[in-house]
Amino acid sequence: MEAIRSPEIDKVYGGANGIYGIISQQIADLSGQVRTTEDFKLLETTPGMALGSCRFKLPPAENDTKVYEKLVKIFHSYNIGYFLYIGGSNSMDTVWKLSRYLKDKEEDIKVLGVPKSVDNDLSGTDHTPGFGSAAKFIATSTEEIIRDSEAYPISSVTIIEVMGKESGWLTAASILPRHFGENAPHLVYLPEVPFSMGQFINDVQETMKKERAVVVVVSEGLKFSDGSYVAQPSDGAGGYSSVGQVLERALVSTIGGKVRSVVLNVLQRCSGHLLSAADITEARRLGTYAVRDALAGETGKVLVFSRVSDSPYLINIETVPVEQVLSAGIKGFPLEWISPENNDLTQKALDYLLPLIDGEVEYSCKAGMPVHFRFDLTPCPPPEKAGLEG
Amino acid sequence: MEAIRSPEIDKVYGGANGIYGIISQQIADLSGQVRTTEDFKLLETTPGMALGSCRFKLPPAENDTKVYEKLVKIFHSYNIGYFLYIGGSNSMDTVWKLSRYLKDKEEDIKVLGVPKSVDNDLSGTDHTPGFGSAAKFIATSTEEIIRDSEAYPISSVTIIEVMGKESGWLTAASILPRHFGENAPHLVYLPEVPFSMGQFINDVQETMKKERAVVVVVSEGLKFSDGSYVAQPSDGAGGYSSVGQVLERALVSTIGGKVRSVVLNVLQRCSGHLLSAADITEARRLGTYAVRDALAGETGKVLVFSRVSDSPYLINIETVPVEQVLSAGIKGFPLEWISPENNDLTQKALDYLLPLIDGEVEYSCKAGMPVHFRFDLTPCPPPEKAGLEG
Repeated sequence: MEAIRSPEIDKVYGGANGIYGIISQQIADLSGQVRTTEDFKLLETTPGMALGSCRFKLPPAENDTKVYEKLVKIFHSYNIGYFLYIGGSNSMDTVWKLSRYLKDKEEDIKVLGVPKSVDNDLSGTDHTPGFGSAAKFIATSTEEIIRDSEAYPISSVTIIEVMGKESGWLTAASILPRHFGENAPHLVYLPEVPFSMGQFINDVQETMKKERAVVVVVSEGLKFSDGSYVAQPSDGAGGYSSVGQVLERALVSTIGGKVRSVVLNVLQRCSGHLLSAADITEARRLGTYAVRDALAGETGKVLVFSRVSDSPYLINIETVPVEQVLSAGIKGFPLEWISPENNDLTQKALDYLLPLIDGEVEYSCKAGMPVHFRFDLTPCPPPEKAGLEG
Repeated sequence: MEAIRSPEIDKVYGGANGIYGIISQQIADLSGQVRTTEDFKLLETTPGMALGSCRFKLPPAENDTKVYEKLVKIFHSYNIGYFLYIGGSNSMDTVWKLSRYLKDKEEDIKVLGVPKSVDNDLSGTDHTPGFGSAAKFIATSTEEIIRDSEAYPISSVTIIEVMGKESGWLTAASILPRHFGENAPHLVYLPEVPFSMGQFINDVQETMKKERAVVVVVSEGLKFSDGSYVAQPSDGAGGYSSVGQVLERALVSTIGGKVRSVVLNVLQRCSGHLLSAADITEARRLGTYAVRDALAGETGKVLVFSRVSDSPYLINIETVPVEQVLSAGIKGFPLEWISPENNDLTQKALDYLLPLIDGEVEYSCKAGMPVHFRFDLTPCPPPEKAGLEG
């Protein structure tokens, strides 16, 4: 919206499936497609990635300049002066390589990184857009599963498996119901600390002495102290088990009784009907600032959130060199926010998470179903003659 | 609310965990607990079963009258004149046995069945309260997963597994996005027709010729023509696979490529944040009518929905003998609403489903989380002296 409204920008293009779509000239004209505030609101509440996704990483320019030359040619043919790249650490790698190449070649094309990741594992920023809404879905679903688990008069264990192969941010969000008067979840295991099956079984047994409906939340990325995953990607014959299933089996064969596992799965990242207003507002602000920074001549930088305080919740948007975001690697969940027993989190974790899920987002419905926005991503040819850079 | 407001009723009791709670005198006084419209609204939007659940079935009175005698004694001590039992076919079995016993003994205690089941498999009623909201969650989640699956430039198959061991009603709800302009889900398999692995693989292969992101929905209760489940409850060593995992494996080993499975799991029945207004309104009406019918002297009956028309959607609430609901057994999804190829549903299925998910329900939030209502189910002793029956 900011780019469309800016008098300095003539056209807004979108690359289908990221940088891959630029290279393959799958470039769509978005300028006319988001006309009204209503269009924009639909876009904001539509799950998935409106421009698609790719796993493509640029080769180092030292080894291979061909793809960079091609990109410059395409940028020129479309009069593209500003390239804003939305994504996680892989996308920031592209921002880094591409902006460096363009600077070296003295090309006047600005490249900025606009973070977005439900995983929240990008360094250099307090959090990433997308995380707050995913956290809200996980917290809400966990509370709902707690209600469900309480309905039965028998002793039970419910294992909830949350996304996060490398970091425990999403799993951590499951403890939010505890701020709202719940006793559950009773045990939480993050991939940042080695997992011990013996300790886990013991933890569950101890909890069962006090609680009828025990709720345990685990990250899909749990690893033993030797570094191997608790749930191996394959256990032979093309079969595999989720972490939840592995732990369920371990409990059934030791403690016995009613044990079930629930994998929250892909719904965590695509539940457009349950969004955090804080998250959506911040995402909008981040995009707006990115366009302004690009117009102001910034390049090779990333827009990040810097937290001033938890309560009242105050966030600044800053622009930092992309190297700063990349050099620190994946941002894991802080070890000091994990309890000494490795099965719970501290108040500091709750304080961090709470403001990120705040506020409800209204979404448009028709006959009981959410209305989704979809771009027409039909590639458009470059403009006939070069005008102002746009 | 209707019972609390009725001048003819002094007290409203709730049995914790159904009839089991009456027998074990886990009887709570609910009269003072739902005071305001706001309390009632919270109760309506709280997932799980507010009074808990049980799997207890009464023995036939011919074999064992002890438990019936105990129940009558407890009803008398609490001055209980009306017993409204909420649930699915097991609960209706209790309504049948108990009402018959009380009639035989000329006890003036009215017993009515108030249907509630996300499975929608109770005979004698157009649908059951709870189904519309579960259907809405499944339809919305399916549409969101469709958005997610479209984000990748590669060919893929996503298998969504939906609840329903015996009937395909919930799985059928997944086709609703098709009414809203989606091509997906492309294939839908219900437990009402025998499943053929060869046909399934062929169906997917054919669909992949036309679609990049194929979405398939399957019921957890799929069975082969010999009656065995596609997903065996156990595949040895305490392990088990979901239907989704079994089919995922079958596709990977034949077609190959990117295949994933998503189990919607328990969230289908406990997502209080995504309710159908049609469902909640009807549930409220059904409860209101049940109290009035009980006060009018009805017993041994069940309140059912009878559909007058799909569009405009018109429903009557009727009261039918409980035998009528029980004698027909589980209500399966109509075979004539399944396509001849057994992998899709007809327009008639859509027409049936559409009105049931209509309308959004607002729920109360605090700091970004839904507020849940919880009864205090502390057992209360019987009143000191018998007053009017209440």
